[in-house]
Amino acid sequence: MEVTRKNFSSVLPEVEKAINEADFLSVDTEFSGLHASNSFHISPLDTPEERYHKLRKGSSDFLVFQVGLCTFCYDKENSTYEAKPFNFYVFPKPYSRAAPDCRFLCQSSSIDFLASQGFDFNKVFKEGIPYLTSMQESELRDFLEERHKQYTQFSSPAFVTPDSGAEAVTTKGPIEIPEEHKEFIEGICNNIQEFLDKEGEESLSLPSCNGFVRKLIYQTVRQRFQSRVHLGAKTNEKKQRLIVVTRIKSEDEMKKKELEKQSTELAELEDAVGFSKVIRLISQSGKLVVGHNMFMDLVHLLHRFCSKLPENYQEFKAMAKCVFPKILDTKLMANTTPCKELLPSSVLGDLLKHIYSPPFKKPEVVIPENFPRYDIDDSNLHEAAYDAYITGICFTGMSSFLGGLQKPPLSYVPPDAPVVKPFTNKLFLMRVADVPYLDLEGDDVLPSRDHVFHITFPKEWKASDLYQLFSPFGNINITWLDDISAYVSLYKRDQSSTVMSTLCKRDARYKILTYELFKNGFKDKESRKRSHAPESTEEEPKKKKPLNVESVTPPMPEENGNKAEEEKMAADSTSEQQPNEQKMFEVPAW
Amino acid sequence: MEVTRKNFSSVLPEVEKAINEADFLSVDTEFSGLHASNSFHISPLDTPEERYHKLRKGSSDFLVFQVGLCTFCYDKENSTYEAKPFNFYVFPKPYSRAAPDCRFLCQSSSIDFLASQGFDFNKVFKEGIPYLTSMQESELRDFLEERHKQYTQFSSPAFVTPDSGAEAVTTKGPIEIPEEHKEFIEGICNNIQEFLDKEGEESLSLPSCNGFVRKLIYQTVRQRFQSRVHLGAKTNEKKQRLIVVTRIKSEDEMKKKELEKQSTELAELEDAVGFSKVIRLISQSGKLVVGHNMFMDLVHLLHRFCSKLPENYQEFKAMAKCVFPKILDTKLMANTTPCKELLPSSVLGDLLKHIYSPPFKKPEVVIPENFPRYDIDDSNLHEAAYDAYITGICFTGMSSFLGGLQKPPLSYVPPDAPVVKPFTNKLFLMRVADVPYLDLEGDDVLPSRDHVFHITFPKEWKASDLYQLFSPFGNINITWLDDISAYVSLYKRDQSSTVMSTLCKRDARYKILTYELFKNGFKDKESRKRSHAPESTEEEPKKKKPLNVESVTPPMPEENGNKAEEEKMAADSTSEQQPNEQKMFEVPAW
Repeated sequence: MEVTRKNFSSVLPEVEKAINEADFLSVDTEFSGLHASNSFHISPLDTPEERYHKLRKGSSDFLVFQVGLCTFCYDKENSTYEAKPFNFYVFPKPYSRAAPDCRFLCQSSSIDFLASQGFDFNKVFKEGIPYLTSMQESELRDFLEERHKQYTQFSSPAFVTPDSGAEAVTTKGPIEIPEEHKEFIEGICNNIQEFLDKEGEESLSLPSCNGFVRKLIYQTVRQRFQSRVHLGAKTNEKKQRLIVVTRIKSEDEMKKKELEKQSTELAELEDAVGFSKVIRLISQSGKLVVGHNMFMDLVHLLHRFCSKLPENYQEFKAMAKCVFPKILDTKLMANTTPCKELLPSSVLGDLLKHIYSPPFKKPEVVIPENFPRYDIDDSNLHEAAYDAYITGICFTGMSSFLGGLQKPPLSYVPPDAPVVKPFTNKLFLMRVADVPYLDLEGDDVLPSRDHVFHITFPKEWKASDLYQLFSPFGNINITWLDDISAYVSLYKRDQSSTVMSTLCKRDARYKILTYELFKNGFKDKESRKRSHAPESTEEEPKKKKPLNVESVTPPMPEENGNKAEEEKMAADSTSEQQPNEQKMFEVPAW
Repeated sequence: MEVTRKNFSSVLPEVEKAINEADFLSVDTEFSGLHASNSFHISPLDTPEERYHKLRKGSSDFLVFQVGLCTFCYDKENSTYEAKPFNFYVFPKPYSRAAPDCRFLCQSSSIDFLASQGFDFNKVFKEGIPYLTSMQESELRDFLEERHKQYTQFSSPAFVTPDSGAEAVTTKGPIEIPEEHKEFIEGICNNIQEFLDKEGEESLSLPSCNGFVRKLIYQTVRQRFQSRVHLGAKTNEKKQRLIVVTRIKSEDEMKKKELEKQSTELAELEDAVGFSKVIRLISQSGKLVVGHNMFMDLVHLLHRFCSKLPENYQEFKAMAKCVFPKILDTKLMANTTPCKELLPSSVLGDLLKHIYSPPFKKPEVVIPENFPRYDIDDSNLHEAAYDAYITGICFTGMSSFLGGLQKPPLSYVPPDAPVVKPFTNKLFLMRVADVPYLDLEGDDVLPSRDHVFHITFPKEWKASDLYQLFSPFGNINITWLDDISAYVSLYKRDQSSTVMSTLCKRDARYKILTYELFKNGFKDKESRKRSHAPESTEEEPKKKKPLNVESVTPPMPEENGNKAEEEKMAADSTSEQQPNEQKMFEVPAW
């Protein structure tokens, strides 16, 4: 079901009902870009924490254009799921002049990709549902209450225009009317006097003029006509701001009018919270939220609809856990044994096709009549609600398969079943070779990287120089960091212990460090910089047991279809690069 | 005439003809936002140079969505103008994987404003004409030529995939095939061998796979099948990248195929230059280009279609002058005596209405049949071509009025007439109180600011504290810089000389500096920072004669309709603030 600003308030109760009735929910988002610059590109040696910081710095300035939510409710009698897919178009239209005026980033290739998928940008920008984070909402509420209080106290109402934004509260005092505006303001006062004398019209619209002049008008008129007129703000169809003067007969009428205005303002703020209410409903339900390759989706959902992303990684985990107590990433499930061995590709579109064939069993899913029917083909791919819908199907498909392996086999696998639990609150990490997942519930599994070395070398060096340097230790894998540095990983891990003694200081042209030493040096610098926010990564990482369904084999980059996965996240050519070609180039600021 | 990617190449000759036949041209642009943050807001005490730096830093990350060009050709026989308005939708779609992937900023309020004006975002993003700056074009051309040369030399073609971007040139050597990809690559080689053996199909599409694997395929296949197959890149309708293998019978056929491919690539690059060709045609014509309040339009046109904006202000002037040898700002004309006294508002829509009434004479303008008729009403305002069209009309209206004042009166005023010349190459400066214009042809007119003082004070201070402090010197005007600093200007300039001796060091809570001292201190710091780019502003500003039509009275902020002007530039609530309320607040990075 398509949800825009036009039908949001009427559909919201249905969304709430669907969430409350659901057994689990699935989500997907479409956004305006992927990487603010190439320097935020992911690397196969990113730790979960490093990956988070890259996403926070490199992706959070992009905007969410569309959020898909699909609720799944199991019907035991018929052994079917009822799915309700909602497709929300969202846009942070500033609801008033006090509301934040968001600046956001777009990436041409991502916009072009969405365009090629038939994405409707007019619907986003013209009919997108507004939203506010809790922080923004409470700031605006404080601001309104402060202004309403000021009105009640009548201390200095003249200095605050009704629409001038939060900063008006901190205005530095009354304004001297500049010479060039005096005649105009006098004219306005004369008009108001005439309007009051005539007793005909009920209200008078003043000519549109700029914010400063409006401020002067508020100040002067309130001084001169204190309890005889009420001033209100209006925006005409040309988006011009007008002041409307209304006749007031008594002090009581004035108060009543003001109270009416105040409650209208509070109602407008309530509307402005908009789509964030859906996220709050999801959060309050505490239900399992499923996503596919959902790290970036999660980061955007939190950042745009809940609160600014914390700098501290542990705080991010706490925040994610608090907003979404249970999440599950189907890409992790698909890349974990035993599903992994049966799925040649975990790209969403491909995954769905595999789930429909043996040994998986096509899940029975029905969509109620008042929702649009989704054909299971690729034509709707990249529409957030469709992607959320098939993500949910993939989840039920894989979890019933896992249930079928149990003894005795389970006919229905609820979202809190023991076979599902090992996957909850773990996020798949794209293209990380040796870390199985980001663990939202505890410390991350950080494997030994004793076979990895950091090396700095002259700019002229090519791969062949590194191959030659490391030739005594067998084959290597190079992860370029920039033109003059790289990580080198040994295939033969047992050779690791001899590298430093053999290569260290043999040649002044290069400098080699163990991975651990390089990271700790780097981390020390980092933690000195942010000593107010101690990172838990400074502690010794605890070894954790792997997922208990069966041991997790690290999800390696797929041989095929990786591009499609990138496309799911919006077309981005460079992030397709693999370890060996991963070199960083700053995007020129064209 | 609407021009998009679809009809651009067929319309371009008509655009060229119209430019070449025209007597003068007018332009207007629509963009994705105004100010990257509130700290780039304009101040009434900005010098032209400061204003340029604010625009460069605070506006150049926004994108141009639409460019309007209207050509005006005078028909002496009928004393009418023929106007040809072209409305170009432009978007920097990356034309290939080597092309720059632009990141751009949007401002919610501006997008919302465009949306309210019925702007078609789908047309921009789906059908926008691409463009490249000269620098981008020559970099891409060099890259192509380098690759074509590499092919000719056949030195190491295997290491360069045909679509991997400029960085491929600097690739650090051959890639070792990782263990996990060996089987897949072997399979591909077997498929190609089978395809060659069978002699049936003419070409073979390999399965879509990621960029790294494609690189491995190129490398391996070229080694093994050197002159027997040709490999080409293809993007299918799902935006997946494929390799297409074609059978090659002889070395000559191979060369021919490669040359064909090379000329296709060069033609693609030619297409990618796109809209920049229009700007080059305008530039080459050397004709007068008219705009309304065109500083920001000029900055965007240069930045997006010509070259990155220079840091140095004098270089900016030189660049502007080089690209557009003659420009004219109708807003400056309207705010200069004698037009100024006859025009209550110089906001574009209002200006047009005034030009249609006495003492101005409605210009006779006809639009040829194959162009859409523009009704002169507000319904098309903010469509770039319409705004360019009425800007041109305003120009002819004002210039014939000025011609009529001559003795003897001129019946036709050509764009190089002596009454027009004083306005050429000068840009109107929005809301600057005492600088008449930015002069692209020489040093700016910088008036004395001996009556202006910079003051730092405790955060608690309000306007009343400043009024009190300065009470010995009469009325003052405050320009807030932030919570703890402001410029204070005296109304009574003759009091200026006593301020420093009276106020300096009387009280430790504040610190006061003359405007000159504050600016020079600041400038010294600035020039130390950028000693490689000496700013000419360090020189003593020369006094210049005012415009010679009649003396220029400084264009003051308008009492009315200022909002409409802001709206012309896209809705931005905060920039509407006037001197007295100008306080800076960083936009929180929500």
